Amino acid sequence: MNIISNVRTQVPLIHCITNYVTVNNVANILLACGGSPIMADDAQEAAEITSICKGTVINIGTLNARTVDSMIIAGKKANELGHIVVLDPVGAGATTLRTETTFHLLKEIQFSVIRGNISEIKTVYQGSGTTKGVDADISDRITENNIEEVIAFAKQLSKKTGAVIAITGTIDIVADSSKAYIIRNGHAMMSKITGTGCMLTGMVAAYCAANPQNILEATVAAVSAMGYCGEIAFAQTQKENAGTSSFCMHLIDAVSQLDDNALIGGRNIESRE
Amino acid sequence: MNIISNVRTQVPLIHCITNYVTVNNVANILLACGGSPIMADDAQEAAEITSICKGTVINIGTLNARTVDSMIIAGKKANELGHIVVLDPVGAGATTLRTETTFHLLKEIQFSVIRGNISEIKTVYQGSGTTKGVDADISDRITENNIEEVIAFAKQLSKKTGAVIAITGTIDIVADSSKAYIIRNGHAMMSKITGTGCMLTGMVAAYCAANPQNILEATVAAVSAMGYCGEIAFAQTQKENAGTSSFCMHLIDAVSQLDDNALIGGRNIESRE
Amino acid sequence: MNIISNVRTQVPLIHCITNYVTVNNVANILLACGGSPIMADDAQEAAEITSICKGTVINIGTLNARTVDSMIIAGKKANELGHIVVLDPVGAGATTLRTETTFHLLKEIQFSVIRGNISEIKTVYQGSGTTKGVDADISDRITENNIEEVIAFAKQLSKKTGAVIAITGTIDIVADSSKAYIIRNGHAMMSKITGTGCMLTGMVAAYCAANPQNILEATVAAVSAMGYCGEIAFAQTQKENAGTSSFCMHLIDAVSQLDDNALIGGRNIESRE
Repeated sequence: MNIISNVRTQVPLIHCITNYVTVNNVANILLACGGSPIMADDAQEAAEITSICKGTVINIGTLNARTVDSMIIAGKKANELGHIVVLDPVGAGATTLRTETTFHLLKEIQFSVIRGNISEIKTVYQGSGTTKGVDADISDRITENNIEEVIAFAKQLSKKTGAVIAITGTIDIVADSSKAYIIRNGHAMMSKITGTGCMLTGMVAAYCAANPQNILEATVAAVSAMGYCGEIAFAQTQKENAGTSSFCMHLIDAVSQLDDNALIGGRNIESRE
Repeated sequence: MNIISNVRTQVPLIHCITNYVTVNNVANILLACGGSPIMADDAQEAAEITSICKGTVINIGTLNARTVDSMIIAGKKANELGHIVVLDPVGAGATTLRTETTFHLLKEIQFSVIRGNISEIKTVYQGSGTTKGVDADISDRITENNIEEVIAFAKQLSKKTGAVIAITGTIDIVADSSKAYIIRNGHAMMSKITGTGCMLTGMVAAYCAANPQNILEATVAAVSAMGYCGEIAFAQTQKENAGTSSFCMHLIDAVSQLDDNALIGGRNIESRE
Repeated sequence: MNIISNVRTQVPLIHCITNYVTVNNVANILLACGGSPIMADDAQEAAEITSICKGTVINIGTLNARTVDSMIIAGKKANELGHIVVLDPVGAGATTLRTETTFHLLKEIQFSVIRGNISEIKTVYQGSGTTKGVDADISDRITENNIEEVIAFAKQLSKKTGAVIAITGTIDIVADSSKAYIIRNGHAMMSKITGTGCMLTGMVAAYCAANPQNILEATVAAVSAMGYCGEIAFAQTQKENAGTSSFCMHLIDAVSQLDDNALIGGRNIESRE
């Protein structure tokens, strides 16, 4: 596997239109994983920034009217240029604005990858294709008991959207329309810091931008890398008897030190055709 | 005391309309203390977000016209639903915009708790009730010499506003209209990092949202917890011969590891009926 | 030398209109180096905030129409009051919006110091004075081979703009119209975290605000301090076998612990009349 070494060699520039809560973490994780970040959300420069980048992240964590326009412009330009575009529909389903914005983005932009938790991805499903209103009748948690159901759902959504689907939680599912991966890495402490999901979405964009012929495997690599680094960070935090802020630092540290061999040794993935 | 364990058990969701300087710290401290943060400042979704939360934080640290509208909407909705609403009037008194916005917020919203330094709280006093223009004739620092004066002032302001008043500095005063607490915890290094005050305001909201029958004591717990964790963080920083950024990490770490027993053992509080 | 002790004694208040990616780091480095930050970007209060400060930072990292107006207001007010104003033209040359905004700012505001990488500073050159369109025909990297050329360019730009010019990279050049310094401090890991440049710009403002009679030397002190602290941070990070997030913490720690004597001992500077 040379997915990570491709990122470190190519240093893909990633345009992020993302929320202001975790934007610093996203920039730092992009640098740590081998990419390079540009945050720019003004409509006047969105297309130009996208043009000089290799990938685009659209994250709706702190939505407002001004930035939605920029998201559409950036996404359309990325599509035009054949670049990677990754959607993080933070909070889709929680408010009308977030749900409708998600639907709007799905209509205007062809995404390469969509990453969210199961609840957000179910909302994405409702706004995709012609079968609107058909609710995915699955629980809001991925467990060993409903894995097959979630996989079938992810594959179906990938078929509808044309995007690789990454559903993250205690267990992670990454799927395209024909193949899925189950990833069992990570640690519960990851939910005790803000930004784990946003950082992962950034990494997905960098990994895919440096491996555009292999988006499914690049996404699996990013998701498993984040989970495995969470395990490394937890071990270090526990050794120091430290708390959640130390954990966040150790997580970014681990991503900055990761290579392909370490990831192959540490990740726990299972594939399903 | 089970104030902290109530937070950790209930995991209250807190809606924050706050400044972009310290927003990441506020999100992380909310997670560290046992709550859960949602940052959302667009007027279109402010009321919906407030509705799914148990508490609301309004922090005017980086004011602009767009977010003031959202603050009013969120605060009014929180009042309507009987939720906790906490005001952090950052910089009130420093500029006309901040002072007038503070007065506007005080007129439109019934706050549960108002937390600021003595100078900000004096500005709040000027904008409260019918006695406008009566300046609180006290110094801009709380010292052992003017404690009684500050307590009388805090109690009077609590009577005027109906809110618990938390005045923080080297010594902290927390009061409602009839009872006050003097808190002597903390360390000077807390003023050498950004966000200590904003983080505390977030914690006050989480502690109160999980202990709504006991807002005065919940606020005292949050204020003393932040101070005590500052002492723990300083000891750790000194042990490592480290600087201010390590201190910030150790502070959040300490909050993430705190429980009620540790707080009772470490806090230095005195009450005055 | 008492440049740093002047900062720690005077605690200059610095008004920052800066990007939301690294704003927290900028606030923390200002506190760490001995200054005090105020971030305020609303046009309604920009002039008032500037008036109570001793220095102003204008950083165009995440530009939008709303904040450009505030930058002009703050810069003009700082000029009127004779305060230090520092420009960080992040990404100038990368998009039309950033280049035109940079030109606009240069036309409206007299800067004390302009800090950027060589590519950004070349764009500044194009927008300065009457010789528009004359491109500085130098490479986009400062190396031992083109140092003399970069120095001549920096001196010429200083003459045109009236500002001290700080061009940072592997080697740093700081110059006014008659004298230049070459600074060989720093470590490559500084480019693996976000915000090193933005933090340095903040420090330049604090150092100059506390040493207004000595802007060239104050800027050299800030640039060499950041580089030397990068070396200290790298040594500590390597000792711990840690990654980029630890490095960032150690960098801010080192700035918080630095004094004039340590800087004199650690910096590697060479002057050219």
